[in-house]
Amino acid sequence: MYELGVVYRNIQRTEAHIAERLAALGSATVHEAMGRVGLMKPYMRPVYAGAQVSGTAVTVLLHPGDNWMMHVVAEQIRPGDVVVAAITAECTDGYFGDLLATSFQARGALALVIDGGVRDVRTLAEMKFPVWSRAISSKGTIKSTLGSVNIPVVCAGALVHPGDVIVADDDGVVCVPRAMAAGALDAATKREANEGEKRAKLAAGVLGLDMYNMREPLAKAGLRYID
Amino acid sequence: MYELGVVYRNIQRTEAHIAERLAALGSATVHEAMGRVGLMKPYMRPVYAGAQVSGTAVTVLLHPGDNWMMHVVAEQIRPGDVVVAAITAECTDGYFGDLLATSFQARGALALVIDGGVRDVRTLAEMKFPVWSRAISSKGTIKSTLGSVNIPVVCAGALVHPGDVIVADDDGVVCVPRAMAAGALDAATKREANEGEKRAKLAAGVLGLDMYNMREPLAKAGLRYID
Amino acid sequence: MYELGVVYRNIQRTEAHIAERLAALGSATVHEAMGRVGLMKPYMRPVYAGAQVSGTAVTVLLHPGDNWMMHVVAEQIRPGDVVVAAITAECTDGYFGDLLATSFQARGALALVIDGGVRDVRTLAEMKFPVWSRAISSKGTIKSTLGSVNIPVVCAGALVHPGDVIVADDDGVVCVPRAMAAGALDAATKREANEGEKRAKLAAGVLGLDMYNMREPLAKAGLRYID
Amino acid sequence: MYELGVVYRNIQRTEAHIAERLAALGSATVHEAMGRVGLMKPYMRPVYAGAQVSGTAVTVLLHPGDNWMMHVVAEQIRPGDVVVAAITAECTDGYFGDLLATSFQARGALALVIDGGVRDVRTLAEMKFPVWSRAISSKGTIKSTLGSVNIPVVCAGALVHPGDVIVADDDGVVCVPRAMAAGALDAATKREANEGEKRAKLAAGVLGLDMYNMREPLAKAGLRYID
Amino acid sequence: MYELGVVYRNIQRTEAHIAERLAALGSATVHEAMGRVGLMKPYMRPVYAGAQVSGTAVTVLLHPGDNWMMHVVAEQIRPGDVVVAAITAECTDGYFGDLLATSFQARGALALVIDGGVRDVRTLAEMKFPVWSRAISSKGTIKSTLGSVNIPVVCAGALVHPGDVIVADDDGVVCVPRAMAAGALDAATKREANEGEKRAKLAAGVLGLDMYNMREPLAKAGLRYID
Amino acid sequence: MYELGVVYRNIQRTEAHIAERLAALGSATVHEAMGRVGLMKPYMRPVYAGAQVSGTAVTVLLHPGDNWMMHVVAEQIRPGDVVVAAITAECTDGYFGDLLATSFQARGALALVIDGGVRDVRTLAEMKFPVWSRAISSKGTIKSTLGSVNIPVVCAGALVHPGDVIVADDDGVVCVPRAMAAGALDAATKREANEGEKRAKLAAGVLGLDMYNMREPLAKAGLRYID
Repeated sequence: MYELGVVYRNIQRTEAHIAERLAALGSATVHEAMGRVGLMKPYMRPVYAGAQVSGTAVTVLLHPGDNWMMHVVAEQIRPGDVVVAAITAECTDGYFGDLLATSFQARGALALVIDGGVRDVRTLAEMKFPVWSRAISSKGTIKSTLGSVNIPVVCAGALVHPGDVIVADDDGVVCVPRAMAAGALDAATKREANEGEKRAKLAAGVLGLDMYNMREPLAKAGLRYID
Repeated sequence: MYELGVVYRNIQRTEAHIAERLAALGSATVHEAMGRVGLMKPYMRPVYAGAQVSGTAVTVLLHPGDNWMMHVVAEQIRPGDVVVAAITAECTDGYFGDLLATSFQARGALALVIDGGVRDVRTLAEMKFPVWSRAISSKGTIKSTLGSVNIPVVCAGALVHPGDVIVADDDGVVCVPRAMAAGALDAATKREANEGEKRAKLAAGVLGLDMYNMREPLAKAGLRYID
Repeated sequence: MYELGVVYRNIQRTEAHIAERLAALGSATVHEAMGRVGLMKPYMRPVYAGAQVSGTAVTVLLHPGDNWMMHVVAEQIRPGDVVVAAITAECTDGYFGDLLATSFQARGALALVIDGGVRDVRTLAEMKFPVWSRAISSKGTIKSTLGSVNIPVVCAGALVHPGDVIVADDDGVVCVPRAMAAGALDAATKREANEGEKRAKLAAGVLGLDMYNMREPLAKAGLRYID
Repeated sequence: MYELGVVYRNIQRTEAHIAERLAALGSATVHEAMGRVGLMKPYMRPVYAGAQVSGTAVTVLLHPGDNWMMHVVAEQIRPGDVVVAAITAECTDGYFGDLLATSFQARGALALVIDGGVRDVRTLAEMKFPVWSRAISSKGTIKSTLGSVNIPVVCAGALVHPGDVIVADDDGVVCVPRAMAAGALDAATKREANEGEKRAKLAAGVLGLDMYNMREPLAKAGLRYID
Repeated sequence: MYELGVVYRNIQRTEAHIAERLAALGSATVHEAMGRVGLMKPYMRPVYAGAQVSGTAVTVLLHPGDNWMMHVVAEQIRPGDVVVAAITAECTDGYFGDLLATSFQARGALALVIDGGVRDVRTLAEMKFPVWSRAISSKGTIKSTLGSVNIPVVCAGALVHPGDVIVADDDGVVCVPRAMAAGALDAATKREANEGEKRAKLAAGVLGLDMYNMREPLAKAGLRYID
Repeated sequence: MYELGVVYRNIQRTEAHIAERLAALGSATVHEAMGRVGLMKPYMRPVYAGAQVSGTAVTVLLHPGDNWMMHVVAEQIRPGDVVVAAITAECTDGYFGDLLATSFQARGALALVIDGGVRDVRTLAEMKFPVWSRAISSKGTIKSTLGSVNIPVVCAGALVHPGDVIVADDDGVVCVPRAMAAGALDAATKREANEGEKRAKLAAGVLGLDMYNMREPLAKAGLRYID
């Protein structure tokens, strides 16, 4: 499935003005707007709460317990990118810590999304470099085997192509394919637009049953009320 | 086991003055006072730390990936209630977000306890609407299949009848059956009463070995000290 | 494997001036300095963020659902110790809460590391008594079966002898054998010494590829760049 | 939730002629016929393949690592019963082995369903005493704390009342409430009756799309075929 | 990531004479020959032991708890195909049983690989229709929401394009991309060719240390023997 | 904790006549006889059912995804040994297949116990070389980093010293320390001796309640019977 030992230097990134506007909409709204696909598994959690980012994916494929390619991917980062790291097998080792974070941040990366472990999490929070990972682990890694950079990868169950948009916040991580990004932005913006009005109604005590006209379809489906 | 497609409108709630006093005692003390039963599994975690609530259960049974009944249960909420949501199969989808939270809060609900996932967790924290869940997930749900409201449900391994008391804090979630609530309040209050004195002694360096007279039973059980 | 029903009173602790200096280096650096061994499994998490401790291990072996020996180990604590609790089977019950924490703290313990569950976590944070555990649970325990104190134990996959050094922070928990502690302190201090300079270079945009001279070995391993 | 320290001697069992006929229909058909509820979680697996049973539930509630009540429940078994064992916390210890199986079998029990571990599994297979469990473990248990017999229990996520019917096979374990048993038998028998004809059609190459008239609703839902 | 509501009818399948010869080499040898990539996660297990198949992938994307598209994919099966089913969220429901198996088998399918649950496993074994799945479950599913057929899917962590080759046996499931299939067959056949000779040497007591000339690199890496 | 890069050639094995007699008693009886300690976690499962072995441990410590040391340990095997392989981090890769099994068997090994994955499981069954492992996986490994041979290791939660006895069967894997082996054999033999008589009584319908004189202690503990 994967091509090993290659680094693609020229990738087509989603246009920045689209990529960066998806963050404000949040992973849940974007995921809904896309038809409920593209979500990474919910074991992917932020190492500190409150970060909300979107950016263009540069991808890296690692082997279990080996973070050699993290140094290779660093060179490919451009401002506005989010690094997406996949591993060829399940592994919770700490592939990434404060030194690599310093390097990634200096290159302009906005975040790391990794289907493995990270360490130095307290320093990452102080640096304000957000990471979404499957684990936190002190365990270091070796530098021995080649993976690849900027090939399509499967990260936490989601297929990510280089240049796709990654939207990540406290609710999770969504991948928006480059070709769908403009459409997803439109659809998500529209969803968002209606939410203020809905929220006001609900806060005033109006029921979703009435606001969404659910009473008839529920009755049709056979719902019975018993006193 | 479950009756599907029904909503029980009239349930017998534990008296409010009992239900609301259990919160201050905390899930651990209440659970201990009940004989160490009624606890939900420890995978149930608060989406933000520090909330401590107790209230009367209104229950809802959902199907995997389907939150239609969340709108139905909203109408049955009365001030002081805690909504308890069970799913007919394991599922981590995000059944609940800020809009439903606005509605539940407007109806007087104190919290949600759900054996599934939720989203918009940052907003939930800002709204101070506490949720205990098995997962956090951006994944939305459909509205297609009927479940039920206010039937007995199994949530995270605990049986909950409508009207029982739910006690939830950072340590976990306990269900106190309505018939046991007054007794549990008494027993937990008594446990609590002794704790201050015990804490003072332990802080002064007195050992539990002496305070609880454990040395003799330990010796009887065969404990040997080796220098 | 385990000797049951015994308490070793005289254990050889790692010298305090070594034990206490490992905290500042952190679990990741210490683990790396030791050759990437001695780490507890990453399911061990702090009950509150930000604590960073090191101390000498006093060990206790418990049976599932039984915390009797926690009172026995309390008497063996000396200032500067970290209590390490292993269980003979997987169990998430809450073996430890605010009363035991008060007692441990009064005896001079710096922290608890337990391959089980704990409760009263909000109070533990307020008391500033750090705990690393596999679970948080309201579930109480009984006092019925003898375990042992200060025998070698396996805790979360790591072998811990009484008197070893435990280093714990937000990244995880490492056990440094007594005989290796001085060497590990040296090696970790040296690693740390270089980090400031490296961090400055990386922050200035120097790549790890160049700083670590990786380009040649990568090319030798066959890495290809594709434009 | 649970009453501790009690043994209910007189329970109302589902009529034998109903209970025993559900086995032949299998857990999947019965579960479907009941509206897809009442299923134990899929971690419940048979210790050997090929057994298919149904019988009336006698229930027992155990504490973690303690099988004392297994001897108490043995006395309450009548021919045609299936013992359902729940534990008050997650525990994989081996609560049951060949001696207890000999006793249960002598009393007329058809099977054991236990939300914990069992041992002597090779002997159980030779004895043809089927067991569905969450784990297999050599670990023995103590006899120290009272649970209860023939109270309602939650086993692997399913609520089981004494006298309900348990249907178990290689696909899993379903609990049919006593009041629903006759209806479930009817509904499941009807489902089964149609299956032979359907199977013949499908074997002849007829598609479910046509047999179930799905083409129109699929088109209505928007399904597009692309050549 | 995924296109919903579409069925691609014309896919380019790997040539049959290549696809069918990979089975005999086995998933481990094929995976090794491909550079150790393309493997599904090891939670994918055969529902009965001993099957060893390879075939061309037809893919289907399902929603949690909904098997509607299984009937749609049936029509797209050609002799020699293996159906690969991905789900948009983790779900262990039983999406597939003996009726669908009858239909798939009648269409010429060799096997099903599904990142969800299946049922009627005893019948599947009798029919000799092999299935690799993440779970076995009696739980039925609904027919409500459109997925897609013959789009690229992520199944158990592996990216599968329609027409790729699936190799599955008791060791696991590997996906061989169509473009790599001929090469993988060559490489795997070569690996296999050497194995007989190696096996004979090892059986005669020759050590891998000598057969693979490992003693020198081990010494160079610093291995020390202590008597 | 671990010494890396060393091979201890001379280890003190438990006497063969003791080691080999423990197999017949089985892991459950031996574990019970030792006071319920020394058991590996129940995720360790045999790759085929029915094997029952005991032998002297030779140990090997591996790094994740690296099986280089498996070739080193092969040379240290003597007839009657069981190889025990620990990994420095959780990893399910397939470290061992039919070629290594051929080599181990030729050297006289009776079995492998590995806290990782294995492959070629069908061939292992045909060869009658039993393996207990945490996973089955086609994924191959590299040969890059030194571990150690015949140092004490923690395998699946149990501490194993070289020369200890490993007892493994369908119920699990127990480690008997060399110093305890003779005593464990005696104690287990005595337990076993009583079992025949007990089994006969239970088969005749005598209850454990009476055979073990449990009625009085149960009443004392407060057990109530309700008609």
